[in-house]
Amino acid sequence: MAKLKASKRSITDPVGFYAAGATCGIKASGLPDLALIVADRPCAAAGVFTRSRTIGAPLVVSKRHLRAGQAQAVVVNSGNANASTGKAGERDAKAMCKHVADELAHNMLTTMRDVSLKPSDVLVASTGIIGHPLPMDRIGRGIASLVTRLGRNEQADADAARAIMTTDLAPKAAHARLTLAGKTVRLAGIAKGSGMIAPNMGTMLAFITTDADIAPAALQQALTGAADASFNRISVDQHTSPSDMALVLASGAAGHDRISRTTGDDYRAFADTLTELCRNLAYQIVQDGEGATRVFRVNITHARNEREADRVAKAIVDSPLVKCAVHGGDPNWGRIVTAAGYSGVALQPAKMSLLIGDPDDKSICVYRAGTPTSLNGNEMRRLGALMRRREVVFNLALGRGEASVQWLGCDLSRQYVTINADYTT
Amino acid sequence: MAKLKASKRSITDPVGFYAAGATCGIKASGLPDLALIVADRPCAAAGVFTRSRTIGAPLVVSKRHLRAGQAQAVVVNSGNANASTGKAGERDAKAMCKHVADELAHNMLTTMRDVSLKPSDVLVASTGIIGHPLPMDRIGRGIASLVTRLGRNEQADADAARAIMTTDLAPKAAHARLTLAGKTVRLAGIAKGSGMIAPNMGTMLAFITTDADIAPAALQQALTGAADASFNRISVDQHTSPSDMALVLASGAAGHDRISRTTGDDYRAFADTLTELCRNLAYQIVQDGEGATRVFRVNITHARNEREADRVAKAIVDSPLVKCAVHGGDPNWGRIVTAAGYSGVALQPAKMSLLIGDPDDKSICVYRAGTPTSLNGNEMRRLGALMRRREVVFNLALGRGEASVQWLGCDLSRQYVTINADYTT
Repeated sequence: MAKLKASKRSITDPVGFYAAGATCGIKASGLPDLALIVADRPCAAAGVFTRSRTIGAPLVVSKRHLRAGQAQAVVVNSGNANASTGKAGERDAKAMCKHVADELAHNMLTTMRDVSLKPSDVLVASTGIIGHPLPMDRIGRGIASLVTRLGRNEQADADAARAIMTTDLAPKAAHARLTLAGKTVRLAGIAKGSGMIAPNMGTMLAFITTDADIAPAALQQALTGAADASFNRISVDQHTSPSDMALVLASGAAGHDRISRTTGDDYRAFADTLTELCRNLAYQIVQDGEGATRVFRVNITHARNEREADRVAKAIVDSPLVKCAVHGGDPNWGRIVTAAGYSGVALQPAKMSLLIGDPDDKSICVYRAGTPTSLNGNEMRRLGALMRRREVVFNLALGRGEASVQWLGCDLSRQYVTINADYTT
Repeated sequence: MAKLKASKRSITDPVGFYAAGATCGIKASGLPDLALIVADRPCAAAGVFTRSRTIGAPLVVSKRHLRAGQAQAVVVNSGNANASTGKAGERDAKAMCKHVADELAHNMLTTMRDVSLKPSDVLVASTGIIGHPLPMDRIGRGIASLVTRLGRNEQADADAARAIMTTDLAPKAAHARLTLAGKTVRLAGIAKGSGMIAPNMGTMLAFITTDADIAPAALQQALTGAADASFNRISVDQHTSPSDMALVLASGAAGHDRISRTTGDDYRAFADTLTELCRNLAYQIVQDGEGATRVFRVNITHARNEREADRVAKAIVDSPLVKCAVHGGDPNWGRIVTAAGYSGVALQPAKMSLLIGDPDDKSICVYRAGTPTSLNGNEMRRLGALMRRREVVFNLALGRGEASVQWLGCDLSRQYVTINADYTT
């Protein structure tokens, strides 16, 4: 029913959304650093946030503004995370929301139905260096300028996606459609990632728009489920950021019957499409992990439950030794088995097996019942080739039950160190 | 009372111990790969082992042989971990013990009082590549040769320390002395580390000898405490190895009154000296972490208890972003605060503070009560200098209680990736 599209349209594809992105001068590089997403009507809104205990000021403010389950705009800056900045940081985050509301009131677009929004209708996000005050004068001028340039087109989508990047090499965008009772429903999202990417979550921002008509509580549950199956199962460097969030705004413009509960086919179809969209964005984030040259997929199967499968998978995707083996295309599978071994799950090696390669694609079993298999020369060559692909797949069966999960990680390269050894200076 | 010595003597310094190390041909490089430590009498023995669930075969065998709290020899090979090798691996580990017992019986040294030991008096350890069978013929010949070359001198100490190395750049050895009731008691140890170093533990092997006269149960408790305060508070790359162990053999030759309980001044003095010795070896391991150019010390203070202090410290020493910042000498302290933030401990930023630099040595407070401090140009320069030292110190106060712990980590360099991206091939 749902179909992921690779086109360039993203967050302004769903009916009712406008966006803009530009340089306001936070980044010394002069690259774009401020984005704005605005809906032409109040939207149902939901968010998921980092579980860090040292959350940034924008998260304090956005969580508060989300309490009513409604929002109409999102303002995002890159280059400065406004985190570990105390009370002053919170004042700045609130001021960003007020700037947006004020400027929109003064610059109402004729195409917008209703832009008389309050500061509490605005959500705010920041990403970048930690522990520095925001340059509020530049941000204020930037917001004033962005409001005059809001658009509904490819350029607006691309400008917003670029303006939220930090060390990302490529902008990340996706969109999807589904049909509910004959009506087309659009979903789209932009994201940024690159470093500090870990479950729960990394410096990961995702902003999703949809014209679905859905109650805030149902939207929240759909987003929580989608994030658990996507953003919370990726890791670039296990360092959970204080700034992460994924937000979704639903304009309701698609015209189908409102989804007001978390049961029923319509809810299921919407939630599944949202999950696919988030997985698509999550994949783009891992693929563009700092210094990454390869993605690897970890399929944990036959676990007792998803929770223990997640623990095993996380130990593997976070292991620097596994990540280096993937980088070198080195079939050093002992590192995968031993990472599982220290995950804290009471594994029994005699019941475990490890296959390398996509299960549908002539994978090679390297470890069975706690013992290495013996591979002939041809199999060794095929194993080497499977390890050198752009996407490497590990399938670890635990022999404990029926649960399975899939995680994504990326390799660890010299470039990661180069990027991160000299970031503030 | 105890004094750490920097001399070259190590494991054969305590009375009653002999050692040897040589090349038997496991490593393709031709570097030394087999070590033997033998006592001239049955010793009280104790060990601590990795908490990995995929432990190597030598650990299965050594744990079994330690049940009686007694041992007389330790045989160690490097270049092959004999891990993830199933039942065949266990047979090989047992065969190594039997080889040692048999060869010692055939080559009794005149200086040794009693070498009629059983295979179960021999402990075995292996380190290196995972998932490959041991070349037992070479190891057998190697053991036969080592038995004829056992010595009690600097050369024997150095040979053994070198033969247990894998990617270590330097051998690791330490010794210490204390006086109990007028008698000199010697302790000494060798260790290897480098990669797969994480608490509980890394590919970390430590072999300690002492001529203290101490009951096995007291020796075990002293070793467990010493390991918790040293080897279990270091991390090079968080990948807990399946092969780690620290073993101690006590010959009892020092001639003081036997320490039979875990109370009393003598026990305390011995345990403290053992802890210092283990900390010394642990420091050497971190300093020689794969690709490491700097060590950093994380002091967590004012925690509610040691357990939560350990969680916060571990999150910091394992963070690749913190490790990269240390590598670049970059005072990007937000990474330290946010690593604490994702440790899972319910921290309150408003009560936290972070000082960089040794507290006794003009440290700089960069974060106080959840807010960055403002530093002048001079302070910024001093902060930069503190970050570029060979040893960098972070002091994070949590404001929750009175507990404190100290951990050690090392930086993450391009060289770490180079070493680990191409290890098996």
